[in-house]
Amino acid sequence: MSLLVVGSMAFDSIKSPFGEVEKVVGGSATYFSLAASYLSPVRLVSVVGKDFPHEVLEMLAARSIDTSGLKIADGKTFRWKGYYEYDLNTAHTVKTDLNVFQNFAPVLPDSFRDSPYVFLGNIDPRLQLDILRQVRKPRLVALDTMNYWIEKSPGPLRDVIGKVDIVIFNEGEIREITGEYNLVRAARAVMGWGPSRIVIKRGEYGVLHVSDGTLFAAPAYPLETIFDPTGAGDSFAGGFMGYLASRGSRRLREMDFRLATMYGSAIASFTVEAFSTERLQNLTGGEISQRVDSFRTLTNFRV
Amino acid sequence: MSLLVVGSMAFDSIKSPFGEVEKVVGGSATYFSLAASYLSPVRLVSVVGKDFPHEVLEMLAARSIDTSGLKIADGKTFRWKGYYEYDLNTAHTVKTDLNVFQNFAPVLPDSFRDSPYVFLGNIDPRLQLDILRQVRKPRLVALDTMNYWIEKSPGPLRDVIGKVDIVIFNEGEIREITGEYNLVRAARAVMGWGPSRIVIKRGEYGVLHVSDGTLFAAPAYPLETIFDPTGAGDSFAGGFMGYLASRGSRRLREMDFRLATMYGSAIASFTVEAFSTERLQNLTGGEISQRVDSFRTLTNFRV
Repeated sequence: MSLLVVGSMAFDSIKSPFGEVEKVVGGSATYFSLAASYLSPVRLVSVVGKDFPHEVLEMLAARSIDTSGLKIADGKTFRWKGYYEYDLNTAHTVKTDLNVFQNFAPVLPDSFRDSPYVFLGNIDPRLQLDILRQVRKPRLVALDTMNYWIEKSPGPLRDVIGKVDIVIFNEGEIREITGEYNLVRAARAVMGWGPSRIVIKRGEYGVLHVSDGTLFAAPAYPLETIFDPTGAGDSFAGGFMGYLASRGSRRLREMDFRLATMYGSAIASFTVEAFSTERLQNLTGGEISQRVDSFRTLTNFRV
Repeated sequence: MSLLVVGSMAFDSIKSPFGEVEKVVGGSATYFSLAASYLSPVRLVSVVGKDFPHEVLEMLAARSIDTSGLKIADGKTFRWKGYYEYDLNTAHTVKTDLNVFQNFAPVLPDSFRDSPYVFLGNIDPRLQLDILRQVRKPRLVALDTMNYWIEKSPGPLRDVIGKVDIVIFNEGEIREITGEYNLVRAARAVMGWGPSRIVIKRGEYGVLHVSDGTLFAAPAYPLETIFDPTGAGDSFAGGFMGYLASRGSRRLREMDFRLATMYGSAIASFTVEAFSTERLQNLTGGEISQRVDSFRTLTNFRV
């Protein structure tokens, strides 16, 4: 079934201990869409400037990503410049130029309004609320956010969280929004506002799910070579939601969410093996399911 | 089969966000022995002062821990005072009084020399080497250490690491001893010195094993209430080695090490639920296997 994503598209300039790239394709919606496209049809809502390369749009379309919700605005594409230190855990921002993203007011094409799966990428919670007004009875809505919105727009953020099924946080974000250090208790606090499942990203340590009465912990794949962690979280979310959307119309069960997590983790583990979307553009279904199998070997302790 | 442990016994004074205790029983060998005692017979080599309570020694003996290698020396027992901040991740030392531990020169009783399983707790690597000279052809030797020895005695530490089968590190320690941030590569570097398996403790994130051609990742149990993390690592090691020692004389396979990890993790998850060894003294086999089952539920993503 179709998966709608709303989020940013950008040019990134990134320095990691393993190299440096200038003005490569990035943005949360870009990583998300590419990751999800291996599993389900994707409908992309975002904005780029006139400087955005046509070949990239063609590449997205070739991966069955419907770009009819992508606005090409007068002006320049969102740019982000940052670097990672040797631990690769924290992205340090050097410069952010919002450019056309500053006035992003997402309007869904009519053909997108019936999207059964919706992912509200990390944008202003007022825009996330606006998207929800434009879709008709989605089956499942997930939301991503960041410390900036937790601090600047706590009211609207709390409103939109109350209207979604799943929130994806990293550890720092959920601790900040709840004021609770213990992750299980923090997740239960957010579930008290509405969502039925909280997904906590723990970077190189993997993912923790908290849902009603159930906990699920999945490791990240212990790679020997990580070139660029940019987009890992968005690729995870794309694989996660793409897998759920691929399950058809039957009711989702706990095991679907768990397998979705492993598909998200598998795809994210490829993303970080190269700069930008390089690795993510050329995956095969076989590579992805092989990596999911590697996770089985990695975590198995059944005799 | 019998499991020999050499390490410290102490009085701890601990403050955590959840309370404060004065002069309670602690020490790596104490936690290790109690944890292992649920799975195999333990032989304890350590030193305490004349001030150490007789009831504690009786409690250890009642748990089939052979204390004939425990020296009761003139003077006071090793004391440690520390605190944890709200994140519970780092023990901050306020004061260390080595007391009788300063002149600890472990001598194995004759009856201990044939111990098939040996755990060299976190003590001076020269003493660890000395223990290895006193045992006869053990089946399996594991070693724990800390940043202090990595910095002060790199030579002897490297020597003793070359003579053991398994090294247990935390993330910071293995990065420091190898100068390599990536844990998989760091583990392979240490394996190049001799050991066939590296166990990396990642605190609230669990454990990563690296062995020849195999990786195993296990989460820690996401507890809602952690009172006192003191002794978690030693309890893990005790459960881990205790399980291995309980496997009898057949050759240990990968799955034995994995299950040993889950038993260690299960027992450690009880330790942190109360101060000192309180919870660890009164476990039942049923509680431990139930927690191991909870780990199965926590990590399962098989359809």
